[in-house]
Amino acid sequence: MVTRLEIIPIEGIPEIRPGDDLGGALLDAITDANESVVDGDVVVVTHKVVSKAEGRLSAVPDDASYRRLVENEADTILRRRGDLVITKTRHGFICANAGVDRSNTDDATAVLLPVDPDRSAHRLRMQIERTTGASIAVVVTDTFGRPWRRGLVDVAIGISGVPAIVDLRGSVDGSGRILDVTEIAVVDEIAAAADLVMGKASRVPAAIVRGLALSGEGRATDLVRPPEEDMFR
Amino acid sequence: MVTRLEIIPIEGIPEIRPGDDLGGALLDAITDANESVVDGDVVVVTHKVVSKAEGRLSAVPDDASYRRLVENEADTILRRRGDLVITKTRHGFICANAGVDRSNTDDATAVLLPVDPDRSAHRLRMQIERTTGASIAVVVTDTFGRPWRRGLVDVAIGISGVPAIVDLRGSVDGSGRILDVTEIAVVDEIAAAADLVMGKASRVPAAIVRGLALSGEGRATDLVRPPEEDMFR
Repeated sequence: MVTRLEIIPIEGIPEIRPGDDLGGALLDAITDANESVVDGDVVVVTHKVVSKAEGRLSAVPDDASYRRLVENEADTILRRRGDLVITKTRHGFICANAGVDRSNTDDATAVLLPVDPDRSAHRLRMQIERTTGASIAVVVTDTFGRPWRRGLVDVAIGISGVPAIVDLRGSVDGSGRILDVTEIAVVDEIAAAADLVMGKASRVPAAIVRGLALSGEGRATDLVRPPEEDMFR
Repeated sequence: MVTRLEIIPIEGIPEIRPGDDLGGALLDAITDANESVVDGDVVVVTHKVVSKAEGRLSAVPDDASYRRLVENEADTILRRRGDLVITKTRHGFICANAGVDRSNTDDATAVLLPVDPDRSAHRLRMQIERTTGASIAVVVTDTFGRPWRRGLVDVAIGISGVPAIVDLRGSVDGSGRILDVTEIAVVDEIAAAADLVMGKASRVPAAIVRGLALSGEGRATDLVRPPEEDMFR
């Protein structure tokens, strides 16, 4: 018997500013919705509100200062085409513009990635667990493009209380054959699932994914493919 | 008010063989679970059962015949490392081994991708809509690796009744700013969400994603990034 999942949007979170108590704002919004956090829940939060609470903002009065900021934030630049720069961030993630984002804020302020998104996820998790008594996980997301496939999807950039990858190698499939290579990037699937209710245009920066039975710990940087294994850098 | 989503596993589907009525088997399993299909549901089905029902199987008595089959199925080979071949399929998808799969079946039989997965999705949708009277969508999935990020995720390779990409360009974000580039690959997020209950080791080849309010039509090939836009081929 496989349980069904619920994906619950967390609405009503006010605009977050540097120094704000994001965990408290999430918990208030959950309570206001007559909802609660229960054991096994995965609380998914877009990095934008995490970065804002952590003060990861930078003034970008013009396009040139935005471009300089991107180059500063990037560890390596992989490709460049017009204004689009594909970068490796200091965390190891490969994404456009070093994850520096000018949308969803006023034009003159850019939102950077958290310095250590796994640590951000861990802190939020500890706060929510302390307040509610529930044993949960937190996933911090960003919206990434992909090579080869059009359109953006949400992926995990920081996690706590959940493995990044579930390794099914050695387990037995439906017809009794032993699976040899099936490592599922389960936190990226969680991030994508949550984005279905978070949207980009509505103010829903968080969601709860309920019903997954996952145990273990991981770090989002477990998702970074080592360069020597990567055929497309 | 954003509605919550439910992701409902469809269990109890028997082993599918060439010529079997897959739509009928799905509907029977849904009924047996005291569940039903309702307006707006997205029925997500792994391509493996679709391909089996369509007879897209091939004998591979040894590794050499498997490799020949992969080269036959591929339109183009992009990279090669040991036994791993990264290919463009005839549909335009870029994936390992032209989507030819030896897991989840006996060793001597490989499962190919459907010839036209959008058409497969459309046929299943028409059958389910005729039988139930509900207006639904169907998404056929496969499990793909990604460059740069470890682990596999499910993506859409055939769709009917749903747009591949939701274009938020020109819409207004939470702070009143007009979003300029936010095309979300919503069917890939649906595929990833469904995989959270489908798993690889349990026999759950389908799921219902309930609660999305999407309208429009698309084709999974809308997700193929044109080579001239792609910086990583």
